[in-house]
Amino acid sequence: MSKFDEIIRLSGYSRATVSRVINHSRHVSPEAREKITDIMNQLNYVPNRNAVSLSTGQTHQIGIVMASTSEIVLSFLNQFVDIAMDYGFQTIIYTTRGDKENELRAFEDLRSKRVDGLVIVTCVNEPRLLKAYCEYGPIVSWQRMGSDEIPSVAMDQAEGYRLALEHLISRGYTRIANLFGRVESLNTQSRREAYEQFMQEHHLPVRTDWYRYSVFTPTDGEQALRQLAADAELPQAVLCANDYVAIGIQSEANKQGISIPDQLAIVGFDNTELADTLGITTIHNPIAEQATHAFCRLWAVLNKQQMESLLQPEPLKYKLIARQTT
Amino acid sequence: MSKFDEIIRLSGYSRATVSRVINHSRHVSPEAREKITDIMNQLNYVPNRNAVSLSTGQTHQIGIVMASTSEIVLSFLNQFVDIAMDYGFQTIIYTTRGDKENELRAFEDLRSKRVDGLVIVTCVNEPRLLKAYCEYGPIVSWQRMGSDEIPSVAMDQAEGYRLALEHLISRGYTRIANLFGRVESLNTQSRREAYEQFMQEHHLPVRTDWYRYSVFTPTDGEQALRQLAADAELPQAVLCANDYVAIGIQSEANKQGISIPDQLAIVGFDNTELADTLGITTIHNPIAEQATHAFCRLWAVLNKQQMESLLQPEPLKYKLIARQTT
Repeated sequence: MSKFDEIIRLSGYSRATVSRVINHSRHVSPEAREKITDIMNQLNYVPNRNAVSLSTGQTHQIGIVMASTSEIVLSFLNQFVDIAMDYGFQTIIYTTRGDKENELRAFEDLRSKRVDGLVIVTCVNEPRLLKAYCEYGPIVSWQRMGSDEIPSVAMDQAEGYRLALEHLISRGYTRIANLFGRVESLNTQSRREAYEQFMQEHHLPVRTDWYRYSVFTPTDGEQALRQLAADAELPQAVLCANDYVAIGIQSEANKQGISIPDQLAIVGFDNTELADTLGITTIHNPIAEQATHAFCRLWAVLNKQQMESLLQPEPLKYKLIARQTT
Repeated sequence: MSKFDEIIRLSGYSRATVSRVINHSRHVSPEAREKITDIMNQLNYVPNRNAVSLSTGQTHQIGIVMASTSEIVLSFLNQFVDIAMDYGFQTIIYTTRGDKENELRAFEDLRSKRVDGLVIVTCVNEPRLLKAYCEYGPIVSWQRMGSDEIPSVAMDQAEGYRLALEHLISRGYTRIANLFGRVESLNTQSRREAYEQFMQEHHLPVRTDWYRYSVFTPTDGEQALRQLAADAELPQAVLCANDYVAIGIQSEANKQGISIPDQLAIVGFDNTELADTLGITTIHNPIAEQATHAFCRLWAVLNKQQMESLLQPEPLKYKLIARQTT
């Protein structure tokens, strides 16, 4: 006799009731749940989770899709994994290395019900290709997708960028270089447009010759400043893709004897702990809160209901944090 | 007729053969595999992964257990996820926040076959409790466990620590403070013993009054230096738990006008990219290679065979990287 049949025999309940208890279904009387759980424990019975998933149609797993687990996405990832765990969901990480086929595996796993939902941190496939997968389960994105089918929890980075620009102009820095991330990303587009619009509004020069792309790491930052410093004219300020790039700029400026902030002002993005340690002016980006929003959206679809308190979270807001580099 | 039966009918192969193709079993002729795969594609047939797991007894998922996904574990995690994906395994992250019950969920998932194996990055439960789970699947640890049942891919940190000490002594720094991580971890014990033994061998003072514990982040490093600097006597050198702590020490020393390396030498640990950017002397720690070793061990057990080329990897070696802080 299998342990499952043993539980039915000992409890006196039907196969259906025992099954409901094992699958954490709500439609069971408290007495039945208690008695059956006790017997399960006595028999040291552990249901095979794959069988449970097959019968409930839910895996309680959510996939998270990203090119790689860089420092930049770490606080999003941490918060997402944490809150998902609080609500009984586990997180599977799909790192794609920016490869389209690798990335599609995550979406195929949604189709084949290995995961109940997906959150996209970064992706390289076209939204119009990915949105076909929405019929298999909820998909939410951190990266802005420009697609109604795949909602994004991202904030418009133009808003944060304008804070940085206002700060720089108010301190008299008008010749500004921009170090961007991925050239094709919507965030980069937003930042670039915010810069161009802001400068035009203030009748200041738009220095497209000081645009740099694919600047992500401290090493990228060091290299970018070496290039900028090799030219005849040095910018008065550098707006960085993130704080790690700003650290690279700061370090290279120190090496070259460029005085900060007199000869060169630096503004990072995200407000990581290291920006605080190293005194770097930056834009506070509520990344963890965006991860909470992402989970809430998935949860609401999966459970066909709103989360009680969680779906009235703080509104997401950028904030300028002025430190020694401006 | 189900799609599965349709495939049997159209292909002319038996139920067992079709099943083997769906479950990626090797015991199928190439002709059968090609014909059945073609028909699966024509019918747009996607097997339910939970059903596949139930029939094969493998989920192709590996759990990775850690307190949180800090920068320190990032390169281990990245490499593990990457190599696991290369070999057809997905990685589930269990972040436990150092909570024993949370942590046991991962081990219960091994028992209930949600994952095929586990890799422990950090854990708080006693090894003697955890080793009972080894009967349900392979478990490998990065953290040193002091248990034969759960093999560890960790290196003896005493070796790396001695490199740092030799370097410091050779440059004339003999009054040395130690900033450790978790007080109870075997790594901390190794480092502390290495320090005490080394100093005694060289007839130099063992400064237990300069031991600090639970120093993990840049902010922790800043605070530690503020405390050390408040005392009558400043150490000549600080050995840090990791590079992030070293960054905090470096930054705080700059703020206090303590000249590096004349008044204070700093040695980090791990050799992260930022240690390079900021010119911090450190110990290169082959973390990614240890993640490769961890996966290879799990893979060998799960597949009851050695990996061809992967199991003759480079031997793991620490290396001193001298920069401007010594």
